[in-house]
Amino acid sequence: MARVHPVGVFAPVATTFGSDGELDLAHFASNLRWYAESALDGVAIMGSNGEYVSLTPKEKLQLIETGVKAIDGRKKVVAGTGVESTRGSIELTKQAAELGADFALVVTPYYYKPRYDKTAYVRHYHAIADASPIPVMIYVMAAYTGVDLPVDTVVEIAQHPNIVGIKDSGGNAPKVGELVARTPDDFSVFAGSANFLYAALCLGGKGGILALGNVAPTECAQIVRLFEQGDHTAALSLQQQMLAPNAAVTSQFGIAGLKAAMDMVGLFGGDPRPPLLPATDGERAKIKEIMERAGILDRASAV
Amino acid sequence: MARVHPVGVFAPVATTFGSDGELDLAHFASNLRWYAESALDGVAIMGSNGEYVSLTPKEKLQLIETGVKAIDGRKKVVAGTGVESTRGSIELTKQAAELGADFALVVTPYYYKPRYDKTAYVRHYHAIADASPIPVMIYVMAAYTGVDLPVDTVVEIAQHPNIVGIKDSGGNAPKVGELVARTPDDFSVFAGSANFLYAALCLGGKGGILALGNVAPTECAQIVRLFEQGDHTAALSLQQQMLAPNAAVTSQFGIAGLKAAMDMVGLFGGDPRPPLLPATDGERAKIKEIMERAGILDRASAV
Amino acid sequence: MARVHPVGVFAPVATTFGSDGELDLAHFASNLRWYAESALDGVAIMGSNGEYVSLTPKEKLQLIETGVKAIDGRKKVVAGTGVESTRGSIELTKQAAELGADFALVVTPYYYKPRYDKTAYVRHYHAIADASPIPVMIYVMAAYTGVDLPVDTVVEIAQHPNIVGIKDSGGNAPKVGELVARTPDDFSVFAGSANFLYAALCLGGKGGILALGNVAPTECAQIVRLFEQGDHTAALSLQQQMLAPNAAVTSQFGIAGLKAAMDMVGLFGGDPRPPLLPATDGERAKIKEIMERAGILDRASAV
Amino acid sequence: MARVHPVGVFAPVATTFGSDGELDLAHFASNLRWYAESALDGVAIMGSNGEYVSLTPKEKLQLIETGVKAIDGRKKVVAGTGVESTRGSIELTKQAAELGADFALVVTPYYYKPRYDKTAYVRHYHAIADASPIPVMIYVMAAYTGVDLPVDTVVEIAQHPNIVGIKDSGGNAPKVGELVARTPDDFSVFAGSANFLYAALCLGGKGGILALGNVAPTECAQIVRLFEQGDHTAALSLQQQMLAPNAAVTSQFGIAGLKAAMDMVGLFGGDPRPPLLPATDGERAKIKEIMERAGILDRASAV
Repeated sequence: MARVHPVGVFAPVATTFGSDGELDLAHFASNLRWYAESALDGVAIMGSNGEYVSLTPKEKLQLIETGVKAIDGRKKVVAGTGVESTRGSIELTKQAAELGADFALVVTPYYYKPRYDKTAYVRHYHAIADASPIPVMIYVMAAYTGVDLPVDTVVEIAQHPNIVGIKDSGGNAPKVGELVARTPDDFSVFAGSANFLYAALCLGGKGGILALGNVAPTECAQIVRLFEQGDHTAALSLQQQMLAPNAAVTSQFGIAGLKAAMDMVGLFGGDPRPPLLPATDGERAKIKEIMERAGILDRASAV
Repeated sequence: MARVHPVGVFAPVATTFGSDGELDLAHFASNLRWYAESALDGVAIMGSNGEYVSLTPKEKLQLIETGVKAIDGRKKVVAGTGVESTRGSIELTKQAAELGADFALVVTPYYYKPRYDKTAYVRHYHAIADASPIPVMIYVMAAYTGVDLPVDTVVEIAQHPNIVGIKDSGGNAPKVGELVARTPDDFSVFAGSANFLYAALCLGGKGGILALGNVAPTECAQIVRLFEQGDHTAALSLQQQMLAPNAAVTSQFGIAGLKAAMDMVGLFGGDPRPPLLPATDGERAKIKEIMERAGILDRASAV
Repeated sequence: MARVHPVGVFAPVATTFGSDGELDLAHFASNLRWYAESALDGVAIMGSNGEYVSLTPKEKLQLIETGVKAIDGRKKVVAGTGVESTRGSIELTKQAAELGADFALVVTPYYYKPRYDKTAYVRHYHAIADASPIPVMIYVMAAYTGVDLPVDTVVEIAQHPNIVGIKDSGGNAPKVGELVARTPDDFSVFAGSANFLYAALCLGGKGGILALGNVAPTECAQIVRLFEQGDHTAALSLQQQMLAPNAAVTSQFGIAGLKAAMDMVGLFGGDPRPPLLPATDGERAKIKEIMERAGILDRASAV
Repeated sequence: MARVHPVGVFAPVATTFGSDGELDLAHFASNLRWYAESALDGVAIMGSNGEYVSLTPKEKLQLIETGVKAIDGRKKVVAGTGVESTRGSIELTKQAAELGADFALVVTPYYYKPRYDKTAYVRHYHAIADASPIPVMIYVMAAYTGVDLPVDTVVEIAQHPNIVGIKDSGGNAPKVGELVARTPDDFSVFAGSANFLYAALCLGGKGGILALGNVAPTECAQIVRLFEQGDHTAALSLQQQMLAPNAAVTSQFGIAGLKAAMDMVGLFGGDPRPPLLPATDGERAKIKEIMERAGILDRASAV
């Protein structure tokens, strides 16, 4: 029996805050209703772009509850449920399942990284997978965590039937290729950034959780469709067209840039929680120009 | 008017857990009563050795409350109150002050490190210092966080009158020297590990928050006393004698090693929270041998 | 007028030493005559696998001279001519051209990397390209040099008409994609390792300089052919089959492993120059098993 | 019988080039005659500040020959003789001994660093020490080489009677302390930068090879003298005064900055070899200001 595994394009949705710094659940819900009608296959609540590290336990539950209701079964819902401790991750994963999430996305523990060996990681993920009512994805985000799980470790973790995929944000082609080659067919290797979505698909990846999916869901989904149709030339061309806007909402301007871009396409972005700084006016102007040049703003109104 | 700043040797106390994985506050209190009678100048609750990243908000408050009561004014109490967000750090700092902590130790935010520039760090620490009823120390722990604040940034943060010191765990002698030279006299530069306590004192440092202080408070305090007496030869000799046991409770065997060593000196250590693995029997045997050879176990009974 | 740029699969040939540690030019020539009859498009003399950092200036000239004669126009010859200084690189590049090399492969200067900015790199490469009678390729080998040229820097260097390509050994899919998108069509982006050859081709790369090409030229060339025929399924399958032998002759066992594998396919490998250690018997047994399982040893006799 | 080991302050002298880019041996000799009359204990020819990686084998011999003659027995002469290969390092070490150098300074091999384990490093240094007629120092320069030899490896290398010291440029206080504690008394642990000279002395170090010694030999030697006299307060004060000028000739402005500073104190500095860029006018102005503020220019005329 095949594992239920995620497929396609997911947006790691932003967490919205009001001008008082509190959660703005109304805008969060309206954003997610927009995504529910989009070309996306799903949303990921509380990925890195969701500022999960700056949320209280209570806020995390509110976001999952609100998100699941807004999506209302029209897309898959991934919930980021990883915290540093195994027991904390298990608790939050169970709560997310209770609230209706389809998958749990569990970031690698990272604080005591010099002390975490293969055994520690395997035990951590297997304990969570044992306890979780929903399938679990591994989340590797080396740029923020400093932890880039070796392929051997992922392969061993993936032997658990309730571990169904990995989101790897690194973009290392040999690693993506080796992960696909050495994990089961019903284990999803996901790109963690739109700048290597097409490459990941070529290598056998099954989709991605892509910041760019928040503002250009149609384009991201189109890359997958072109690839599936065997139109490599068009897929590569669209992939290249997405490099600049992808950088604008990730490495170049960060979460503040993503939120600014969301404001531009008719969603509510707002500002991130400090110490993250909001986008400056100059940055907003550059983001707008990049989005326009890539043709994203034109089509934003038509989901 | 001089700032109230920390001086001397502080132990970053371990958080104790029962076999059920829950907080063991009784043992935590008994450990701290032992420290209250020791040669230490203070304790630091919820440093990295206190596994603060694996605790819930509620557990954090319980530890501060229990610790302050157990110390009962006999030593200074530092509380680790840094979380990723500025607002979360402010909230916890205020609560720690309310509960009676003398200083707040605020770790550098680190998750979105590629996005945090000097402005972000200065705003973060100044906002906390503005809001905090108690003096604030900066906590730099690059081995775990990947963030090694540049001297320029620290110098600017230190201009705030409620920022009174820094714990730097790196051991870089030029950096310690430059921090001392470029910050006010009533700003404390603290060693973050006993393996460079003597060097830090030579360079103008005012003490340290030292994992080794948990099991060898007398020796750590003695290094400071010898230095103050101008007996450099004896201070260096004792410093060298402490290198092996210091490694045993830090880089070599980690928090599990520290907790095992605590068990050996008559305190309660226990096991860390997973994914941290407990010390193996082989590791315990090595730790014991190292502690004995350094003469720590002999004197442990006599605080 | 299009630049003459490299295309296809090149082997970064090993430098052969006798048991006395001196160059063994006879075996070097016989190896290259074998490659001249193989499916390769060319050879690269004095890449990292050629131990160029352990050779004297005189030995370098002997290798180029011997190699060009052995290849005898049947394949393209790339010569590694980069040293730390601009003037030294220019001198060796001119000598290589004089001796008949088709392309010069110039590694990024790296020793003073904290001092080298974009200006320094652009001036370096443009000065060499100005002086060189033959087209120049940039060589990025971050695992050994610690220098991973930013895309912006490469794009600016590539504006010189005598700079015709880059070998990037990193395997970062977004970077390969962006390099292709932002450089001219007649600038070749080359994979630096066989473990991402197929991905590089998908992204618009024109070939690779591949350690594995030394022992499995037919398979490497076949990946390119399958890709060109649009048979992505077969190309990916063969790419995956090559992951293990590629690791064996690169990251897993290094140059000593490559040389051991060469001995196994009927070439002469021998030992590397110390401080590189020769492959142990245990390592040789593992390499043999990996090569056999990948079907490389069976077909080695028939070039 | 104690090993002959280096003691005191050495300047890693700059290599001087004419406007044609060729070696300028006349100015090199005049600089060294100035050093021979200074407060220095010795000079180190062809350290990193001597741009040894940009020199031909012939130029290296010319520099040693010229340097030894200019010093004329008045100071100790260290010659940088490390290259990547063991055999090349042995050859150059023998030549340096022949030309009259007192010590050989052998940088860690580094290009194939992922392949060099403890065995490789121990064999390399022991082979050189076996073959060398003069005592050998280990040179660790992690900022440029990426290799920071572990203490265990140094301890094992140091067991050879012809290995007499280490220059470590990292400044890590725990490491310096542990190196001193675990190596013989007649093995010299040397600071590699003036910004931790005093700290290194406190920890049992025996001196340093200091870029700042090129332009402030009196001050550097004075730190050692004050330390030896037990005047820690004055030693630390002078050490702090040297932080800014030391940064100016090392991390802040690099070799170009050092050479500019040499021009300012009446020596000949000139420009470095490309790709190193010369100091700009703005940089020269800043260096001058830093040197003046530290009182170095005033006293430069009086050696």
